[in-house]
Amino acid sequence: MTATRLTPVALNRAEFSAFGDVIDIADQQPLTINYGQTLRYDDLAHIDVAEQGGRPVLSIFRSKPVSLPFHVEVLEYHPLGSQTFMPLHDRPFLVLVAPPGPVLEPAMICAFITNGMQGVSYHKGTWHHYQLSLEMESDYLVIDRGGAGDNCVESRLDNDVWIDVI
Amino acid sequence: MTATRLTPVALNRAEFSAFGDVIDIADQQPLTINYGQTLRYDDLAHIDVAEQGGRPVLSIFRSKPVSLPFHVEVLEYHPLGSQTFMPLHDRPFLVLVAPPGPVLEPAMICAFITNGMQGVSYHKGTWHHYQLSLEMESDYLVIDRGGAGDNCVESRLDNDVWIDVI
Repeated sequence: MTATRLTPVALNRAEFSAFGDVIDIADQQPLTINYGQTLRYDDLAHIDVAEQGGRPVLSIFRSKPVSLPFHVEVLEYHPLGSQTFMPLHDRPFLVLVAPPGPVLEPAMICAFITNGMQGVSYHKGTWHHYQLSLEMESDYLVIDRGGAGDNCVESRLDNDVWIDVI
Repeated sequence: MTATRLTPVALNRAEFSAFGDVIDIADQQPLTINYGQTLRYDDLAHIDVAEQGGRPVLSIFRSKPVSLPFHVEVLEYHPLGSQTFMPLHDRPFLVLVAPPGPVLEPAMICAFITNGMQGVSYHKGTWHHYQLSLEMESDYLVIDRGGAGDNCVESRLDNDVWIDVI
């Protein structure tokens, strides 16, 4: 039995770049459009859903909250497309990821926490946990891939691997 | 001189269907996923951006508020793709649209107001006003088309057509 306690780190582009995009306008330079009425923070995440004839699908996910410490049991990845989550609320949420690859490496799982304004977009193939809201049920705008093909692979941690996010 | 005062009507699918999609989960049946932790309100708007090799682009628009009565001067349409706006706030915003066609027909302009939770997705070709926030500067998640090609057509109302949204 290995037991690991993961403390989430503040979500940031540098550490998250191996897994996906951080959607965050705080450090971005906008374009001014619409006769000065609008700032456009352009092209904030790579929506990568065209493989095998895929199309972008826009949905809303309503996810129940989890409590800390949170015991990690299962991660998933999408081999055919990115998956993008933008919070429709202003509370931090947890982000658990591991590097792409056919086999989930539990020792490589990283935990992040958003600042309440950030969204995330997982690259095609990035192992990630399903959405982990905190405090209360929370809604997210989601853009992922629709189309033929098996686009979800799950991996359940072995019984002798115990990971808690604290 | 024709003078028109438009009173916005509550945004609803039936009246908006000629112009685009209303993003609203209130009347939608979700899928249950993630071991019961998540409700997925699936495929809420038609993201139609593939024409001429286009790709989906995710951006955030920060738009200054306007005051009522609001004087309408210019509308636009995107001949190559849909444009989707989801509010990252919970305040109503104005939606001004007119039917697709090469020439803007001012008499056909319709005004809607959202309920604070709804988003909108303009079909390819639908004449629409740029984002009209109320009360305060407001952010929107936007999905539209990136790629080659001229994808914005504007039309300014003639001086003898006066339309106010009240």
